[in-house]
Amino acid sequence: MAIYQNDLVYIEIEESEIPWLKIFTRTPYKELSEAPHEVKTEIWRLLDIIEKEMLAFYKPDKINIASFGNYLPHLHMHIMARFRDDSFFPEPMWGKQQREGSYRLKDFDRFCADLVKKL
Amino acid sequence: MAIYQNDLVYIEIEESEIPWLKIFTRTPYKELSEAPHEVKTEIWRLLDIIEKEMLAFYKPDKINIASFGNYLPHLHMHIMARFRDDSFFPEPMWGKQQREGSYRLKDFDRFCADLVKKL
Repeated sequence: MAIYQNDLVYIEIEESEIPWLKIFTRTPYKELSEAPHEVKTEIWRLLDIIEKEMLAFYKPDKINIASFGNYLPHLHMHIMARFRDDSFFPEPMWGKQQREGSYRLKDFDRFCADLVKKL
Repeated sequence: MAIYQNDLVYIEIEESEIPWLKIFTRTPYKELSEAPHEVKTEIWRLLDIIEKEMLAFYKPDKINIASFGNYLPHLHMHIMARFRDDSFFPEPMWGKQQREGSYRLKDFDRFCADLVKKL
């Protein structure tokens, strides 16, 4: 489900124990460098805002960003707020599970509602 | 070992079975959004060039990009050329190994030497 969209991109929630959003391009490109300059610039602009909002709201231990698309070759960027006590830290969310995470996602609806006002 | 550096960033090789480079900021920031605009812009510029050169030279099945820094909180971007027959595809390089990869890194010295002329 998209929480935000404009002419170039849309943003979806990844269901997870942590705050995790995905920025997709409206036009499906396979690789980042294939996207027009204005689309790339829009991705960087949104990543910057989302990261700052995640840092301010959740005070995570680290932000993680990734673009893989090996299963689904439609350009998208993951942005995640990571916590020392989440299930995978310090491994990436795609890595080996480290523990039963004690971090619990809080107020994500409110975070998203506040965020989209700033995009 | 840095294969390239300028006033803002430097580029290192990650030893791997695949073509894999890392862009570090010269000044160590923890998060991407903490870096000045000119540093972020320089990272995006280099990612774009490196991706295009990897696509042209190696014809990979996908490019992967990531910024984690959970172990080492010094802003850096990974960029990797991925192949269907590498050890982890379609999982990220941090995921579960899928096979004994049959992809073998070829001519990486030449690739890097050609690349730095374009940065």
